[in-house]
Amino acid sequence: MKTSIATVSISGSLVEKLHACADAGFDGVEIFEPDLIASDHSPEEIRGLARRLGLSLDLYQPLRDIEGVDEATFTENLRRAAATFATAQRLGIGTVLVCSNVATATVDSVEHSAEQLRRLGDVAARYDVKVAFEALAWGRFVDDYRRAWRIVELADHPSVGVCLDSFHVLSRRHDPAAIEDIPADKIFYLQLADAPALSMDVLSWSRHHRLFPGEGDFDLATFVAHVLKTGFDGPLSLEVFNDTFRQTDPDRTAVHALRSLVWLKDKVADLPGVGRGASLTPVADAKPPVGFDFVELKAEDTSDVEILLEQLGFVPSGRHRTKPVSLWTSGDVRIVLNEHQARDLDPHVAAVGLQVPDADATSRRAADLMAPAAYRRTYAAEQALGGAVAPDGTEFFWVTAPPAGSPPPWVAEFENGLPPASDGLLRQVDHVNLAVPWQTSDEAVLFLTSVFGLSADAPTEVAGPSGLVRSQVMRTDDGSIRLPLNVAPQVLETADMPQHVAFACTDVVAVARAARARGLRFLAVPDNYYDYVAGRFGVDADTVAELRELDLLYDRSPDGTFVHFYTRTVGSVFFEFVQRVGDYDGYGTDNAPVRLAAQRVRSTG
Amino acid sequence: MKTSIATVSISGSLVEKLHACADAGFDGVEIFEPDLIASDHSPEEIRGLARRLGLSLDLYQPLRDIEGVDEATFTENLRRAAATFATAQRLGIGTVLVCSNVATATVDSVEHSAEQLRRLGDVAARYDVKVAFEALAWGRFVDDYRRAWRIVELADHPSVGVCLDSFHVLSRRHDPAAIEDIPADKIFYLQLADAPALSMDVLSWSRHHRLFPGEGDFDLATFVAHVLKTGFDGPLSLEVFNDTFRQTDPDRTAVHALRSLVWLKDKVADLPGVGRGASLTPVADAKPPVGFDFVELKAEDTSDVEILLEQLGFVPSGRHRTKPVSLWTSGDVRIVLNEHQARDLDPHVAAVGLQVPDADATSRRAADLMAPAAYRRTYAAEQALGGAVAPDGTEFFWVTAPPAGSPPPWVAEFENGLPPASDGLLRQVDHVNLAVPWQTSDEAVLFLTSVFGLSADAPTEVAGPSGLVRSQVMRTDDGSIRLPLNVAPQVLETADMPQHVAFACTDVVAVARAARARGLRFLAVPDNYYDYVAGRFGVDADTVAELRELDLLYDRSPDGTFVHFYTRTVGSVFFEFVQRVGDYDGYGTDNAPVRLAAQRVRSTG
Repeated sequence: MKTSIATVSISGSLVEKLHACADAGFDGVEIFEPDLIASDHSPEEIRGLARRLGLSLDLYQPLRDIEGVDEATFTENLRRAAATFATAQRLGIGTVLVCSNVATATVDSVEHSAEQLRRLGDVAARYDVKVAFEALAWGRFVDDYRRAWRIVELADHPSVGVCLDSFHVLSRRHDPAAIEDIPADKIFYLQLADAPALSMDVLSWSRHHRLFPGEGDFDLATFVAHVLKTGFDGPLSLEVFNDTFRQTDPDRTAVHALRSLVWLKDKVADLPGVGRGASLTPVADAKPPVGFDFVELKAEDTSDVEILLEQLGFVPSGRHRTKPVSLWTSGDVRIVLNEHQARDLDPHVAAVGLQVPDADATSRRAADLMAPAAYRRTYAAEQALGGAVAPDGTEFFWVTAPPAGSPPPWVAEFENGLPPASDGLLRQVDHVNLAVPWQTSDEAVLFLTSVFGLSADAPTEVAGPSGLVRSQVMRTDDGSIRLPLNVAPQVLETADMPQHVAFACTDVVAVARAARARGLRFLAVPDNYYDYVAGRFGVDADTVAELRELDLLYDRSPDGTFVHFYTRTVGSVFFEFVQRVGDYDGYGTDNAPVRLAAQRVRSTG
Repeated sequence: MKTSIATVSISGSLVEKLHACADAGFDGVEIFEPDLIASDHSPEEIRGLARRLGLSLDLYQPLRDIEGVDEATFTENLRRAAATFATAQRLGIGTVLVCSNVATATVDSVEHSAEQLRRLGDVAARYDVKVAFEALAWGRFVDDYRRAWRIVELADHPSVGVCLDSFHVLSRRHDPAAIEDIPADKIFYLQLADAPALSMDVLSWSRHHRLFPGEGDFDLATFVAHVLKTGFDGPLSLEVFNDTFRQTDPDRTAVHALRSLVWLKDKVADLPGVGRGASLTPVADAKPPVGFDFVELKAEDTSDVEILLEQLGFVPSGRHRTKPVSLWTSGDVRIVLNEHQARDLDPHVAAVGLQVPDADATSRRAADLMAPAAYRRTYAAEQALGGAVAPDGTEFFWVTAPPAGSPPPWVAEFENGLPPASDGLLRQVDHVNLAVPWQTSDEAVLFLTSVFGLSADAPTEVAGPSGLVRSQVMRTDDGSIRLPLNVAPQVLETADMPQHVAFACTDVVAVARAARARGLRFLAVPDNYYDYVAGRFGVDADTVAELRELDLLYDRSPDGTFVHFYTRTVGSVFFEFVQRVGDYDGYGTDNAPVRLAAQRVRSTG
């Protein structure tokens, strides 16, 4: 199926938008009228540019407040519509979107609206355009696609059909199954948008919070399946109003948008009764990751991290043959320290390595989903890892999971290390917490969902001393991969929000004592916190004394308990050690404000 | 009445918050439990600090999910409550806020809740604290203050009373009149917050969008009047959860917050049946401004603005006696160009002069409302203008309106000007459009409302090529003062958003022709726009041709028409000329995207 996108979905001038959509690989675009009005290119010039770029112009939109009015108003509306049809004709566009009347409708009658649409169809025919009639979720009398279809059916005019928009249907919780009652040749257009489950007025929700498919809570695959079952073969077109995308680079948003359609088409093809016809290009299948392979920290000088790792019981396991990169291990946990091309950089999380069932399959899937490839120069006898750059710039690499107990092949490239050592307390990387700019947080969700098959937990919010931090955990169902994404308040630069790597251990008290014996400075937890823990959870005095002595934090859920501690921050990264007891599945979110305040005391002195 | 504020309302550490509240002049604070937990100061140290700062500690909050539960849960809750009461006692705080159960309530019975609150009161009494029970708007069974009061009444315990919070009452549209049924000695606490009229789930609305009194849509004066009529004489306390204030400097927010209470107390005292007792300090009365006196533009070098003003028909009317400042006039419109201490500054709107009925009264009112004074050094025989600095840094000055036709006295300080000239086309300053950072836009509304008696129109949004711009017009009822505040998208620096001064004229076509003859370059409007105007409004071909020739923009409402044009931008300021025909009362908002796009073409080349 062809892909299309409304120009309102991305930022920039109309000419910039067309270039961005063509470069990303869209087949066509819908022209949003205000974009044309504000353009210094004439309709004929836009038509010519689109032809040169290989873009079809699929729709001109919107024409508002036409039907359901008295005769005098309708006469004026027909004159206004004719002007819009004339512009569409100059653009070479064959379909104009007419949305249901919001402002001026006074007649609540499908027959009346049908009669007016029929007359509108006569005018449209004179300009060689068709009218796609859409029920807005907040239309005055027409706010349901089934009613819009009834009107179109009654109008019974070859130039009049319906436009279906997933937002207007699913935001009102209307059952999309009745779409199958509409003949394919009467579905003149199909617009798609996802959205988070918000409880707010539907107009604001629509104008500000639409998302690309895969980023919200709507079941778009089922919606599209209903449309395809009619035999519809027009383009899948995105119309996404979103405050963030309006402020983001158009080239980047266009690729992001197309990825969402590629992902969606693949999802739809998997549904029963649809079938993967030639029109639904498959995306290579790949199973989700089964565990972390390594975490890479990068800096011009990684010495401070090395001191910290040594205090935490890691040993230096070798230096890379050809690059200024070293490997530190503790049992099966691997930290890579990279000083390559890192001038002026402070320590930060640069890359995350994942173990997957089949690395080649993941590479094919990433390519199908247009994930930008992560590049590492490799030399003779070196392992070339598959890799992709996440929207925030963090690199993700993947290797086929080695047999239990053996390291992945790339470890052999590291030489002259100390013998492996482990106190047996560290089990694995529990989670890697990344700081994500607010501009790319939705895109990050789609990236991690589509490429790696992670799923998004419900977001939470944490009050820090400089504002609310939104936390969005991306994870596998079994918790073997957990990636909390922290979205910074607008006032903070993302670089000022530390990232962290958390290690799961079997006895966090023993780890803390051993680390303290090696000279580790913990993040100091305020005394008041321990009074709170005693009061809140009724923890016994001895345990509270031990928590207090070791600067440990505590949380409890109905499923289990969580004890954890933080190191000081080095550059923009710190480490956490966690012990999950029972089936505790969280991250000690209630303790995050305490951590944020303690880190702020440190950083402001 | 004493003033108080919850520490959750401002940013920073608990110690910083206490200092900020004391410096602003608050009498007391409520301690938000998470602020204490995250503090490295013990409860006794916080108590000592508050005493040194002269702040009373009025409330410790919140204690959650206590009542309406089964007996086993309640036993555990009493233990937890005792720990909280012990902390309150260490802080020297006499009242603890208990909010209605959201998470664990299973018993929907006022008798059951009352019995549990009575037992809670017994525990509280042992720690010398009282319990103020509050109905949260989203409480499981108790979501109405009338039900909370019924429970307290049944509990009938000297240590148990109610806490009233304006947000929880007014967000649910509960009638606050029944507050008068509660005896004053059973109202243990009063919390105030304003909020915009939003249609969203009440929890998100409360957590993110509360405002200080005077900034939202709630009728807080009437709410407070009901409370005062009971005889209540406790503090008026602000509890405002707001994403913006969490990110703003605490000192600044504290002053902003106190200003809202000063304004509110004055409003309440004006209500019938309340009376201005000793407890409600009056704010000096001052009538709203009647017109613009001048607009001051500032830059290191104002030459570019002078060229533009000359092309627009202004004449240089003199140089200030003692400062590098010049005056340009056209009829009664005065533009002041200021090169004083303007190193490296590009042209921008630095100050707005207002004519008021009584300048001394306005000065007294501004002082009572703690408006920061704007300072201008004056010399012998110079006029000292009253002035205040708005939250965005723009200075506002005021003079007593001179008799019709005569200039204000300060004009005499400008010497060696050309004789006044006017083509008679320019009538007055129509509006001054200021660019306001999103962090200070709510504060700006309160500032302009409270000091000058302006009122806020409903905000609108304009789609620009770099994001949505929110426009908030502040104005007098008669339109003699109009100040559209443009709030920039987060991605833009406010400095990148141009400001403008709009002049009302009687014949905008004649002004445009005269300006063109003098060599003025207009902001170029795209050709497509005129096709749209013809189609949308059915404007006749001759008029469209004239609009097109002169780069004029057009709008129409049911009340009249609006024709306007823009100059190019100099520094961060441009000029607009507008002609209002009939009772057109808007600003051509639909044309703003065209302007924003045209300005972007100019700035990106």
